[in-house]
Amino acid sequence: MKILIVNGPNLNRLGSREPGIYGLTTMEECMETLRARFPEVELEYYQSNVEGFLIDRLQAAEGCTDGIVLNAGAYTHTSVALHDAIRSLSAPVVEVHISNVHGREEFRHRSLIAAACQGVIAGFGMDSYRLGVEALISLHSTKK
Amino acid sequence: MKILIVNGPNLNRLGSREPGIYGLTTMEECMETLRARFPEVELEYYQSNVEGFLIDRLQAAEGCTDGIVLNAGAYTHTSVALHDAIRSLSAPVVEVHISNVHGREEFRHRSLIAAACQGVIAGFGMDSYRLGVEALISLHSTKK
Amino acid sequence: MKILIVNGPNLNRLGSREPGIYGLTTMEECMETLRARFPEVELEYYQSNVEGFLIDRLQAAEGCTDGIVLNAGAYTHTSVALHDAIRSLSAPVVEVHISNVHGREEFRHRSLIAAACQGVIAGFGMDSYRLGVEALISLHSTKK
Amino acid sequence: MKILIVNGPNLNRLGSREPGIYGLTTMEECMETLRARFPEVELEYYQSNVEGFLIDRLQAAEGCTDGIVLNAGAYTHTSVALHDAIRSLSAPVVEVHISNVHGREEFRHRSLIAAACQGVIAGFGMDSYRLGVEALISLHSTKK
Amino acid sequence: MKILIVNGPNLNRLGSREPGIYGLTTMEECMETLRARFPEVELEYYQSNVEGFLIDRLQAAEGCTDGIVLNAGAYTHTSVALHDAIRSLSAPVVEVHISNVHGREEFRHRSLIAAACQGVIAGFGMDSYRLGVEALISLHSTKK
Amino acid sequence: MKILIVNGPNLNRLGSREPGIYGLTTMEECMETLRARFPEVELEYYQSNVEGFLIDRLQAAEGCTDGIVLNAGAYTHTSVALHDAIRSLSAPVVEVHISNVHGREEFRHRSLIAAACQGVIAGFGMDSYRLGVEALISLHSTKK
Amino acid sequence: MKILIVNGPNLNRLGSREPGIYGLTTMEECMETLRARFPEVELEYYQSNVEGFLIDRLQAAEGCTDGIVLNAGAYTHTSVALHDAIRSLSAPVVEVHISNVHGREEFRHRSLIAAACQGVIAGFGMDSYRLGVEALISLHSTKK
Amino acid sequence: MKILIVNGPNLNRLGSREPGIYGLTTMEECMETLRARFPEVELEYYQSNVEGFLIDRLQAAEGCTDGIVLNAGAYTHTSVALHDAIRSLSAPVVEVHISNVHGREEFRHRSLIAAACQGVIAGFGMDSYRLGVEALISLHSTKK
Amino acid sequence: MKILIVNGPNLNRLGSREPGIYGLTTMEECMETLRARFPEVELEYYQSNVEGFLIDRLQAAEGCTDGIVLNAGAYTHTSVALHDAIRSLSAPVVEVHISNVHGREEFRHRSLIAAACQGVIAGFGMDSYRLGVEALISLHSTKK
Amino acid sequence: MKILIVNGPNLNRLGSREPGIYGLTTMEECMETLRARFPEVELEYYQSNVEGFLIDRLQAAEGCTDGIVLNAGAYTHTSVALHDAIRSLSAPVVEVHISNVHGREEFRHRSLIAAACQGVIAGFGMDSYRLGVEALISLHSTKK
Amino acid sequence: MKILIVNGPNLNRLGSREPGIYGLTTMEECMETLRARFPEVELEYYQSNVEGFLIDRLQAAEGCTDGIVLNAGAYTHTSVALHDAIRSLSAPVVEVHISNVHGREEFRHRSLIAAACQGVIAGFGMDSYRLGVEALISLHSTKK
Amino acid sequence: MKILIVNGPNLNRLGSREPGIYGLTTMEECMETLRARFPEVELEYYQSNVEGFLIDRLQAAEGCTDGIVLNAGAYTHTSVALHDAIRSLSAPVVEVHISNVHGREEFRHRSLIAAACQGVIAGFGMDSYRLGVEALISLHSTKK
Repeated sequence: MKILIVNGPNLNRLGSREPGIYGLTTMEECMETLRARFPEVELEYYQSNVEGFLIDRLQAAEGCTDGIVLNAGAYTHTSVALHDAIRSLSAPVVEVHISNVHGREEFRHRSLIAAACQGVIAGFGMDSYRLGVEALISLHSTKK
Repeated sequence: MKILIVNGPNLNRLGSREPGIYGLTTMEECMETLRARFPEVELEYYQSNVEGFLIDRLQAAEGCTDGIVLNAGAYTHTSVALHDAIRSLSAPVVEVHISNVHGREEFRHRSLIAAACQGVIAGFGMDSYRLGVEALISLHSTKK
Repeated sequence: MKILIVNGPNLNRLGSREPGIYGLTTMEECMETLRARFPEVELEYYQSNVEGFLIDRLQAAEGCTDGIVLNAGAYTHTSVALHDAIRSLSAPVVEVHISNVHGREEFRHRSLIAAACQGVIAGFGMDSYRLGVEALISLHSTKK
Repeated sequence: MKILIVNGPNLNRLGSREPGIYGLTTMEECMETLRARFPEVELEYYQSNVEGFLIDRLQAAEGCTDGIVLNAGAYTHTSVALHDAIRSLSAPVVEVHISNVHGREEFRHRSLIAAACQGVIAGFGMDSYRLGVEALISLHSTKK
Repeated sequence: MKILIVNGPNLNRLGSREPGIYGLTTMEECMETLRARFPEVELEYYQSNVEGFLIDRLQAAEGCTDGIVLNAGAYTHTSVALHDAIRSLSAPVVEVHISNVHGREEFRHRSLIAAACQGVIAGFGMDSYRLGVEALISLHSTKK
Repeated sequence: MKILIVNGPNLNRLGSREPGIYGLTTMEECMETLRARFPEVELEYYQSNVEGFLIDRLQAAEGCTDGIVLNAGAYTHTSVALHDAIRSLSAPVVEVHISNVHGREEFRHRSLIAAACQGVIAGFGMDSYRLGVEALISLHSTKK
Repeated sequence: MKILIVNGPNLNRLGSREPGIYGLTTMEECMETLRARFPEVELEYYQSNVEGFLIDRLQAAEGCTDGIVLNAGAYTHTSVALHDAIRSLSAPVVEVHISNVHGREEFRHRSLIAAACQGVIAGFGMDSYRLGVEALISLHSTKK
Repeated sequence: MKILIVNGPNLNRLGSREPGIYGLTTMEECMETLRARFPEVELEYYQSNVEGFLIDRLQAAEGCTDGIVLNAGAYTHTSVALHDAIRSLSAPVVEVHISNVHGREEFRHRSLIAAACQGVIAGFGMDSYRLGVEALISLHSTKK
Repeated sequence: MKILIVNGPNLNRLGSREPGIYGLTTMEECMETLRARFPEVELEYYQSNVEGFLIDRLQAAEGCTDGIVLNAGAYTHTSVALHDAIRSLSAPVVEVHISNVHGREEFRHRSLIAAACQGVIAGFGMDSYRLGVEALISLHSTKK
Repeated sequence: MKILIVNGPNLNRLGSREPGIYGLTTMEECMETLRARFPEVELEYYQSNVEGFLIDRLQAAEGCTDGIVLNAGAYTHTSVALHDAIRSLSAPVVEVHISNVHGREEFRHRSLIAAACQGVIAGFGMDSYRLGVEALISLHSTKK
Repeated sequence: MKILIVNGPNLNRLGSREPGIYGLTTMEECMETLRARFPEVELEYYQSNVEGFLIDRLQAAEGCTDGIVLNAGAYTHTSVALHDAIRSLSAPVVEVHISNVHGREEFRHRSLIAAACQGVIAGFGMDSYRLGVEALISLHSTKK
Repeated sequence: MKILIVNGPNLNRLGSREPGIYGLTTMEECMETLRARFPEVELEYYQSNVEGFLIDRLQAAEGCTDGIVLNAGAYTHTSVALHDAIRSLSAPVVEVHISNVHGREEFRHRSLIAAACQGVIAGFGMDSYRLGVEALISLHSTKK
């Protein structure tokens, strides 16, 4: 099984950016933990600060992945284009967030992409990614 | 470890209510699956259609549980009282939903309780409960 | 034919509560009038001030009634949970109101349950219940 | 007793217009059914696509009718002028709709005329007209 | 000098319609009073309940009038088409209202036509028409 | 008969302030014109840039005036306190504006004081004051 | 092939009305140009200032036309009744505007009829009509 | 004199729930203090987390109490049903809050019940109850 | 103990202004009653219609008072400047209102100053001032 | 004559993405059809998922093109930056859409770029591009 | 060159008012620093808590100053009258704020006066005044 | 001291883009002027039309700069991602605008990034950049 993990803007600075909100773990460490935990899954990682490159990457995954864990960061709240990209994919996409976005600023309460995703997982720190992978594995086994 | 699973209004009819949205699994079957999967966790279940009884139950859990998985159903969108009940608990509460509420009617997009919860998991069918339990176990092991 | 009439909060005080708006007839007198008028229909009555008990009663009616006349009172304007309960029933539900809610306060103009009901009848005093029963009888005869 | 039935825009096409929503009965058939059911009532019918002609007709009814059943169609949602015309009449006006307008597009949820009417009946197909006539007869007998 | 006075929907019933708001004077009496007061002005009067006929009449006045006093009644609050008709005229149009619309229902506070008019006069009963004529005479003498 | 004319903020600069909108006539010239036109009326004038002093002046007029012409300038759109002051007076108050406020910025469309006034006159340049005085004289003669 | 061109309120004054926005071409000249350009199409023209007459005309076209080019003018922004009339037709309707409505007043940005039309063409002056006819011809040839 | 003190959801946990906002005093201690301070008043206390039970209790108080101090907790912001229950009582109801709700989250700024109450007291900790009792005693003595 | 009582715009006319809402007691009589009731408190009174003078007075009280009872009248709903002035004081400020502002016009429902005050008391007529003083005395004794 | 056709995000997947909405034609086929139809026009094509690259391309076209057909896809609804880029060009830009955006989700109804464009064409499938080119040719011939 | 510095409500308490937000420097110290830094500029200072006196002062500056630095404090967010006063001046006005108003309460995000000013400088503590003077000097030198 | 100046979309065309709003100076000339004026500061310049590249550049500046002057152009009004990028930097960021954005279209009044910046400077043409550098120098000297 192949899963793609995609991170949006500013998430390349995990570990150093506002650790009070996002914690001290870097995304590299997170990927290592995930690979150790899910040895049967081929995990690929992509990050970009550019909305359009995220769309490019999602499109490129069509037909090559069994599921996508997407933390679109701030684009979650502003991007109709990501919504469209997700909707045109055949593999399921899980929206994840490290922090509980509902407990933060008003403009982080609305997700423009959630309606195009399979589901949402938010608020569990780096563990949100692990739960996202779990959810995709479970969906995958159900389909077979 | 003890985990309480609480279901709100109309979720006693899971399995027969609008199966197109909520599936055919009953909550009893779901609890069995969970207990089989997490033998090390003591899982308790409570359901009520009465907002105030849900609050009573949450309050009664104070000091007796290590985490709560709460599917508040329709009260998610209208209850400030549940928000307050959750906020006054010391154990973490995970908000779960069976369907992806963001893809449904406008009045289901707003959660009045999310800001008081640890995190949110929505859209994975009955698997949302399993992921909620996973998240609580992980939180629990981190704290120790 | 069996019809259930359900009244929501404060409607147990009909006859004494704000008679300028709701009139002087009590619900007991209303039921008597209805039973006299529709001898061929088995009419049952339920009232509660508790939102969740109303949901309990609606659920219990599944499979045991041919139609429900529901005056949800103030919960009409605030309850997504009643909306869900109605939508999961197979028998038709008619929303009734004694007063013309559109001519009253702004917060009484919106109905959260109307979209889940078969139809709405409002503004005819206690006669609204009679018209609700008429509508259900007519629907019933059409289906046969 | 005299009752006037007034239909607004596009309701002259009942029977052929969007039968999925409005059914296959024409208004002529509906009037026949009503006249057969209420032989003691003098029933008059008027339809126009022109908002101002509907106002003309309502004004002309002043002093010549004991009640009006009004399906203002799309003007229900946009016409303050019809609201004013209704309010200046001494006979009661009942707002009716064939479909359950609350279950349709957002812009059909608001009625600009309901506050000027005696009451509202919506969602019972062509039977809405019959219930409207019933309601007026009942109001009429109460006044005597 | 020629002035056209145009009344919109329901204003043909002045004198009998809701006298608590609109008074007991009929429009015929009002026109007589105006003609007696302004013998030097040729005063013409038009009323229709039909929005489009009001537009027809305004268009026909182009080049034949020195000013228009317009009480568009309820169309004041809903008609962009009247706004356009007024804006395309070369003679000044004064918007008048009998009652003080700002002290009535919320939906009467907004005027869609005011921005296209020369000015607004509201709240002086039938005297609003007289003040409208005065204003037009004054504007006329200024231009010469 | 005694009439008080009250001008609000920035209206002391009439004649020099934004002549494209407000014209070149000063308020002194305006008062002279009014006194010449209405020799039978005792006309008093007051202006202040201070909201509270305008309230003081309106209060002081209680019992000493037969009507007030009030151009509250920018306070029209922001002052609930002037609304209250007007409402507590027994003499009628006419709200006037030099320009057609509905054709200007959005924030000038709402009047917080109109509902407390007898009526509104706007858009006729300095002639708005003359029409305001006319309206008050007419109201006065009606009352006698 | 038969195409009906329908113009709404104030569009009878094209050529003389606000030429800065609408240009100097009259609708007669426009029809001539269209007939010269599309000799194979039978082009009919209708205009009215009355909303209800436009509905009458659209209804009358049912079964007699292969497409409609509709410039509903100001009714575009206020008429739910036209929306309904369009939706009940079997031939495609193209909404056209002479000016770019999005660059004008806020209240011209919303179209109540667009959702019921095949498509929208706006901002190309009288050429908008020509493009509307082109679009209908193309749709027609595709269907065959 | 008899006064009923009613507490809504989560207020049974006063003393332990979020002491930073609600303080350390329990409601039992508060009642003791009140009884000591007002020996001439018969003070009764009721609490429930169930909205409908609060309505039941208010209704039961009709004719048996001289005033009610109501802290509806979170239901203050969501319950139209409590509004109706209060409005149907003949004894005065005083809305109290321990914290200054205006300084907290946006959704706590609106009270749906205040308009049905005699008055509001908020922000004085447990002393809000004492001030509520004082206000009712004062109202009571005025009426005699 | 020293307490300052500050009244905002139009409250100098208490006793004569809209007695249906504000009663017949003047503020002088109210102060006498308060001084008789609280002989141990030094009570000072200030009133102005000028927003800025109210701010001046509040600032002057810094360090010279143990509490302030503020009825800001209409400025309650419009003044951010009073909010700032209150927030910069070290003594507690209690917002009071004579009428129940929540039962009046929409624009009186919002308080811009409440969030800066200790608490709010509204709806008890002139007794609101007495309760405000009580509350301050109680707060004062707690601090010692 | 030179025309540039620019496609925004996800439009590189035309032909495979949601064919129910966007059809089965690829953009390559569309360009071929256009080049065949307009042999006299030099047609260039550009697509990017990156908002900023679309701006780069529009800027690069300044002075090198006679018109631009722009389908900004999802950026239509969110990009002020594209609005600015369009407004700074001297050649006309025509906004096109394949689907009728007004009949889709609420968030697709608002165009942030329309006000900066010459006009809008929407709802004609791939024919929208052809009509856009037609419109530009017509504009071009008018200017000469 | 002459520059006037005007401070609005509560800014007379700089140095002692909420030092966490506004710092410890008094306005006197600030003026000294400014005079030392800009010896070639004649700097005048005015402060008032009264909105109308600020307008008086701005008006008096007409023709006597080369620029104004205005910190309108809380009136920034509520005063249309200051907007009008600024717009009627010929010298440029720079709006300054000590704190970054965008990072504070929602009601401080909107400036009613910014559109009438030359520009805005906010968030640099007392240095905002210095930057405001710099900007005016630069503007002044450009004009010569 | 090192300062980075970052320009957002369309600002590469300064000097030729809408000179009525943005002036005739190019950014190259502006940088030269700044370098001449602040020889002690190392000034670097970056521009991109791509939102994500602006974020990349801001991130790359972490630890290498003492301050950033950011003119985010149109992204100011739509980018939550830039907000996050700014907030995660340790050096202060000053938001600058060439034009007075508050005097332009409604959609330019809201800044999504201001709350994350140190302060805002807008409306002084190219001099806004100079004032931004001044502000950073001043902040820098304070910190030492």
